[in-house]
Amino acid sequence: MTMIDAAFYRGNRIFRVERTETPGPGPGQAQLRIAFCGICGTDLHVFHGNMDARVGLNRIVGHEMSAVIEAIGEGVTNVTPGQKVVVRPLDPCGECPACKRGHGHICHNQKFLGLDTDGAMQELWNAPSHTLHVLPDDMRLDHAALIEPVAVACHDVRMAAVQQGEDVVVIGGGPIGVLVAMVARAAGGNVVISEVNPARLRIAEDLGFDTINPAESDLKAMIDDRTGTKGADVVFEVSGSQPGVDAMTAIAATRARIVMVAIHARKPQIDLFQFFWRELQLIGARVYEPQDYDQAIALVAGGHIDAQKIITNVSPLADIQRAFEALDESPTAMKSLIKVGE
Amino acid sequence: MTMIDAAFYRGNRIFRVERTETPGPGPGQAQLRIAFCGICGTDLHVFHGNMDARVGLNRIVGHEMSAVIEAIGEGVTNVTPGQKVVVRPLDPCGECPACKRGHGHICHNQKFLGLDTDGAMQELWNAPSHTLHVLPDDMRLDHAALIEPVAVACHDVRMAAVQQGEDVVVIGGGPIGVLVAMVARAAGGNVVISEVNPARLRIAEDLGFDTINPAESDLKAMIDDRTGTKGADVVFEVSGSQPGVDAMTAIAATRARIVMVAIHARKPQIDLFQFFWRELQLIGARVYEPQDYDQAIALVAGGHIDAQKIITNVSPLADIQRAFEALDESPTAMKSLIKVGE
Repeated sequence: MTMIDAAFYRGNRIFRVERTETPGPGPGQAQLRIAFCGICGTDLHVFHGNMDARVGLNRIVGHEMSAVIEAIGEGVTNVTPGQKVVVRPLDPCGECPACKRGHGHICHNQKFLGLDTDGAMQELWNAPSHTLHVLPDDMRLDHAALIEPVAVACHDVRMAAVQQGEDVVVIGGGPIGVLVAMVARAAGGNVVISEVNPARLRIAEDLGFDTINPAESDLKAMIDDRTGTKGADVVFEVSGSQPGVDAMTAIAATRARIVMVAIHARKPQIDLFQFFWRELQLIGARVYEPQDYDQAIALVAGGHIDAQKIITNVSPLADIQRAFEALDESPTAMKSLIKVGE
Repeated sequence: MTMIDAAFYRGNRIFRVERTETPGPGPGQAQLRIAFCGICGTDLHVFHGNMDARVGLNRIVGHEMSAVIEAIGEGVTNVTPGQKVVVRPLDPCGECPACKRGHGHICHNQKFLGLDTDGAMQELWNAPSHTLHVLPDDMRLDHAALIEPVAVACHDVRMAAVQQGEDVVVIGGGPIGVLVAMVARAAGGNVVISEVNPARLRIAEDLGFDTINPAESDLKAMIDDRTGTKGADVVFEVSGSQPGVDAMTAIAATRARIVMVAIHARKPQIDLFQFFWRELQLIGARVYEPQDYDQAIALVAGGHIDAQKIITNVSPLADIQRAFEALDESPTAMKSLIKVGE
C-alpha cells in the first residue's frame, strides 16, 4: 500500500483532496503515475450533481490523462515501467451484440473508467493494461492530456471519411468542436467553424479557422458563397441545439455526410425531407476505437494540434475545487488541466 | 403526325382522354408504343390538384410504364424497333454540383418525365433514348410496368447495403414498402413489415412476410424478441409519420442503418441521442440510378417480385378517370395499372 493524494467527488459541487492508500497493480493492471488530467464536460456534469446516481459520492473522476508507468501487475506484457502512456478509458463486456460485432467502444454494458470506476485525479492509478497506448518518449505530458478528446475528434472525422479538399463546417466551436476542426483540417478539409460565443470565435480565429457567428450573419449564404452553391460536403453538429440541427440540413451539399457529435437530450425537429431529397447521410459517432487513439497520438506528436492555445488553464491537484468552479463560471475557457503529479 | 389517344390532366381531379396528334421521334428520341402504365402516388398528387403549378392543366402524366419500340429518331443506336423497353424517367441537367459528382439522379434541376414533360398515359410517347432500358423478350409487359417502383426499392436496399441474414424492418406496408420488403428479402434479409392498415397487412402476409400492427402490438418488443435484444440491422422508414420516426430509432441495433424512403413534408422530432449513443446512420434515398433499373429488371424477370399479387387492378386508358377515383377511394389497393395499348 502507498499513501497518495486523490480528489474525491463528495456531491453537491464539492471535490476534496484527501490522503488515501492505494494497493500495487493487480493482475492485468499497470500502476500509472498520473502527470496531467483534463477536465471533461462529463466531469462538469458530475460536479453539477447530474450523475450522482451513476458515480456515487466517493468517486475519483478523470479520464483525459497522461502518465508514466510506475509498475506492472502479473501478466502485463504490453508496457514497461518508465514508459509514457495514456488510457483509452473503455472497458467493454465482450458479450453484448455490439461487442460481438466488434464495436466494443459502444458496448451496451460499457464501463467508462473515471466514471463507473475510479479515474485519474489521483497520484497513482491502477488501470487495465489493455486500455493503454504508449506515447513517444519526447511527448510533453501536458499536451498528451489532450489525446483523449483528440481521439474523439479523430473518430468523428474518420466516421465522416473527410477527404482532401472537401468543404467542412463545424457547428459549435467549444473544445470538441475546435478539435474536430483541427483533425478535419489535418485530413485536408476546408473548415469553417460556426459559433455564437464571441470569446470562442476569437480562439477559433486565433487557431487559423474561418469562422462565422450564425446569430449575426447568414451561415447558409456564407457556405453557398464559398462553395458555389454546392454546400458543405461534411457537417459536424457539435452544438446540441435546435438552430444547429436546422443549420446542418440547410448547408449540406447533395449526398453530404452529417456527423452527430453532440448529445441531444431533447428530441429536436429535423428536416427529414432534405435527407430524402438530397440523399443526405446522418452518422452517429461516439467515443473512439483503438485506431483513433493511434491517430490522435500521431497528430499531437506531429504538431497538428495546437495544444498551447487549447490548454487555457493548468492547476495543481490541490486546487481542483477552484479549477472546477472557475471552469463553470468561464465558458470562454477551452481546456483546463489538473497537474496531478510530476 | 399520327393520331393517338392520350389522357390529359385538366385540373380539379379530372383526366380527359382525347384524340391528339403526335409527331415521329425527334433526334435522340425513340417512339414508344405504350403497353401499360401504373398509377404512382405522385400521379395521385397531381389528381388531387397539389401539383398544378408544376404540371399545368394540359399534361399527360405517367412514368411507371412498359412499351415496345415503334420507331427511332436520328442518332439513336441503343434500341431497335420491336424491343420491349422501360423508361428511367429522369433527365438531369449535367451541369449542377450533383451532376458533376456523378449523382445525376438527384440533379438540382431534374426534369422528371411524365411530370415536368408529357409521359406515358398515351398510345405513342417520344422519349429520350438515353432513358431506355431494354427488357427480355419474354417479359410480360404488365409485370414490366412494376419495374420503375421496383427500381426505387432496389435503390433503397442498395443504399442500405442489406446483407444475407440481416434483420430488416420496413415501417409502412404500402406499395413501395412492400416492394422494398421484397427486394430486401431477395438480398437475404429477414424482413418484418410494420403497418397499421389491416387490408395492407393481409396483403403483406399473403406475400409471405412476417407482419405487425404497431397500433395493436409492441413493435420494439417483437423485434427485441426476434433478434435476442440486438435490434434491427436495417430499418426502412416508409410511413412518413411521427410514430414511424419514433419507431425507427427505438428498434435499431447498434450501428444500424436507417433508410429514409418516405417524404416527410413536416419536420418530425427525432431521437438524435440514439444516433450518438448507438452510432446509428440515417441514409436518405431518392429515385434510382441505372444499376437499380438493371437489378429491378433482373428481379422481375427472375420471379422475385410477386407481380400478380401487387397488381390489384388493370383498367383500359378510356377508364383512367374511374381508375384514379377508385384508387383514391380504396387505400387497400396496391398497384393499379392502366392498359394504354396492346
